[in-house]
Amino acid sequence: MNIQQTEDTICAIATAQGGAIGTIRVSGAQAIAITDRIFTPISGKPLTERKPYTLTFGHILSPAGEIIDEVLVSLFRAPHSYTGEDSVEISCHGSSYILQQVMQLLIKKGCRAAGPGEYTQRAFLNGKMDLSQAEAVADLIASTSAATHRMAMNQMRGGFSRELSALREKLLHLTSLMELELDFSDHEELEFADRSELEEIAQQIEQVISHLVDTFSVGNALKNGVPVAIVGETNAGKSTLLNALLNEERAIVSDIHGTTRDVIEDTMNLGGVTFRFIDTAGIRETTDTIESLGIERSFQKLEQANIVLWVIDATRAEEQYHQLAEKILPRCQGKHLVIVLNKTDLLPLTEKSLSCSVTDTTASMHKPIDDLKAILPDLPEDACVISLSAKQKEGLSLLQKQLVDFAALPDLSQNDVVVSNIRHYEALSRALEAIHRVQDGLTMQLSGDLVSQDLRECLFHLAEIVGGEITNDEVLGNIFKHFCIGK
Amino acid sequence: MNIQQTEDTICAIATAQGGAIGTIRVSGAQAIAITDRIFTPISGKPLTERKPYTLTFGHILSPAGEIIDEVLVSLFRAPHSYTGEDSVEISCHGSSYILQQVMQLLIKKGCRAAGPGEYTQRAFLNGKMDLSQAEAVADLIASTSAATHRMAMNQMRGGFSRELSALREKLLHLTSLMELELDFSDHEELEFADRSELEEIAQQIEQVISHLVDTFSVGNALKNGVPVAIVGETNAGKSTLLNALLNEERAIVSDIHGTTRDVIEDTMNLGGVTFRFIDTAGIRETTDTIESLGIERSFQKLEQANIVLWVIDATRAEEQYHQLAEKILPRCQGKHLVIVLNKTDLLPLTEKSLSCSVTDTTASMHKPIDDLKAILPDLPEDACVISLSAKQKEGLSLLQKQLVDFAALPDLSQNDVVVSNIRHYEALSRALEAIHRVQDGLTMQLSGDLVSQDLRECLFHLAEIVGGEITNDEVLGNIFKHFCIGK
Repeated sequence: MNIQQTEDTICAIATAQGGAIGTIRVSGAQAIAITDRIFTPISGKPLTERKPYTLTFGHILSPAGEIIDEVLVSLFRAPHSYTGEDSVEISCHGSSYILQQVMQLLIKKGCRAAGPGEYTQRAFLNGKMDLSQAEAVADLIASTSAATHRMAMNQMRGGFSRELSALREKLLHLTSLMELELDFSDHEELEFADRSELEEIAQQIEQVISHLVDTFSVGNALKNGVPVAIVGETNAGKSTLLNALLNEERAIVSDIHGTTRDVIEDTMNLGGVTFRFIDTAGIRETTDTIESLGIERSFQKLEQANIVLWVIDATRAEEQYHQLAEKILPRCQGKHLVIVLNKTDLLPLTEKSLSCSVTDTTASMHKPIDDLKAILPDLPEDACVISLSAKQKEGLSLLQKQLVDFAALPDLSQNDVVVSNIRHYEALSRALEAIHRVQDGLTMQLSGDLVSQDLRECLFHLAEIVGGEITNDEVLGNIFKHFCIGK
Repeated sequence: MNIQQTEDTICAIATAQGGAIGTIRVSGAQAIAITDRIFTPISGKPLTERKPYTLTFGHILSPAGEIIDEVLVSLFRAPHSYTGEDSVEISCHGSSYILQQVMQLLIKKGCRAAGPGEYTQRAFLNGKMDLSQAEAVADLIASTSAATHRMAMNQMRGGFSRELSALREKLLHLTSLMELELDFSDHEELEFADRSELEEIAQQIEQVISHLVDTFSVGNALKNGVPVAIVGETNAGKSTLLNALLNEERAIVSDIHGTTRDVIEDTMNLGGVTFRFIDTAGIRETTDTIESLGIERSFQKLEQANIVLWVIDATRAEEQYHQLAEKILPRCQGKHLVIVLNKTDLLPLTEKSLSCSVTDTTASMHKPIDDLKAILPDLPEDACVISLSAKQKEGLSLLQKQLVDFAALPDLSQNDVVVSNIRHYEALSRALEAIHRVQDGLTMQLSGDLVSQDLRECLFHLAEIVGGEITNDEVLGNIFKHFCIGK
């Protein structure tokens, strides 16, 4: 860590532009003294002589003695502040002109404009929180639903850190047993008894890590939305379906084949679940280079989805099944597939009523999905068929219900530890690989030295998450650059 | 004033969406007690037992005991708060989800969501500021330049109010002298001596009010920008000129005559002065109804302008002078006129060099403005000619300099009283009319009763500005509805 940097006193506007109130944060050894140079309290002592956790009303004055604003100053003293440093918050009128003027004065008097997330980074460096807690601050600010809020709040308050700390204890215990075994490695009769105990502990550790890794699919779906890919032939009505679901004109709709060349993503909330819809370019043979790229991306996006909506023009259903089944179905393994028979409003009345009845998946009389399974043996186990008219907005509610059923996200409490951060997920995945090697090593009765090395690697990856002494500037830079300024 | 309303405890999010910090304001008799119901301090006493002007760290808890956020609570007690009531400010993480949750909890526990400007309205009703000061709060928040900031700060800090208060004293003095005269009206010899003294006082009052009314043109130009109308024939390059000045593609530019049908307004800052540019539909004979409306609006907008830029296609200058002079010049009386000879890049080189030399208005050799005055005798006194190519962005700096010269806005200090509020301007104008009637009455030796009535009217209009006892709910509603929520 660059020492010069932490010695700086930093300032930043911590509120968004446009409100009634604007707040400027100042933090660092000189925070109170620098603020005193531009601030005149209405009555009484300067800030340096005041108690922490107090508010002082007064004026910010320009060097020419002009009043820039009437403000309230909040005072905090190290270590009892967000950053752990001396800190001041200046609450101004929410004019960007005023806020800029105050910032300029602070900088003139010795502050430096803070970078993104620099307050939280200092809180981490000063031991006020670990790295996973610091990351949760950004998630908390970005939270838009009860579920994302709960995940972030639990993580910020150290729920995840406590889980990792317990894991670390177990790993250290295993390491010490391993070392004990090494010390006694000449006593062959001792070894086997220890090994089975070691294997049991390793298995417990593996289960915890494995569980944490598994929570990521839920955490990621909650945080970024359950990914739903909309695929199908050109002009099957994919964009119209997306618009009908989003209830707005998000994608450009026309009758010209191949209108959607970009992959369009949009999120919406259904039954408390956020879905991330991925509208894709229509799949067809094309000589248009740009369109070909779009189709290529459609397949890539399909792989990221949990749920696939295969949109089929009901007036040409048989033809489309045969044309695309080979391309689409192999990519749907392990995913939920909904076959959407669109354009039912264009069907002749007799076919339409049939098509409508097939919507009722509980009806025992006619199961179109069974018919389909006869034609398309590769269908995923829980695939279903829904008939609708995206254009007339008929039959959408059944599709929405099916999406919520397929999403099947658990209700979280604030005590559930759920991994939602890709950095944590990657570190846990590497820790899991390491503990698997430990288990293999124990089974294969490898020497304690080799197993210990994997144990250390496992500990290293877990420590990465909370930011142990091994955390370098680059890692910190990557984490905090995504924060907003003022946090 | 509705009493029920002021008894409510109100709450609002006072910061804009999207920052690191979000602040919720609570004000009213129950502000502290209600906040205590959802807030648990990390240590120590509830808010009701804490001292004012202190900060308390703790948790906002849902009824189910879930932590909604870790917050800092600022405490204020009546009358030492912005509103003059008991108040609390809750500083949360800047997530709109969290802020909404806290708002819902406050409302569930007895708060009402505040309307726009309701905090400032309460500050006014509780005698913390007068009405003109309250209005300055909104201006201060909206201020974007040193000049608008100074005007608003002076007004908020009571500079204007003090001026009005001095006027009121003078008017009351005049009224009492008038009443004295009425008492002695049977003593004819006394009357004439008093009348000349009364006339002198009335004249002093008239001068002050008249000066204040005059400051409005500066105040309004500073607040809303100096209005500059860009007029001329279709396809003379008005939109291209506007874009060149604004340095962006604000207006749609094409070679088709009559492209600009809407009146486009945009502001820019030149030499510290804000200009409000009004691009207008080209003036030509047309059968297109929509275009005719646009041309009609061009003339209306021309009347609002302080400065008129008459853009002329230099390649067809003579023709355009003759076609439009009659329509444009009569509407330019009392305004500054700049004749912009555009498209100099299309002139043959010989003419071009001539055209360029005419730009130099200080050159004594050739004064194109004198030539023009021979052709167009109606030109305003200070009219000038500037040659340029908007398309090639040549010659723009001279035009910019001329605009700043014509604007000629004075440098304000924070002590200058400048009227920038249209409501104040209108009240002052009516007060001015009343004092004029007082002066006429004194000159015409009308009876004291009649003159007193006009004096009372003058006092009434001045009282309207600061909001005396005569201010009704409707006036207050109109003033505060333009405030942001949370202020």
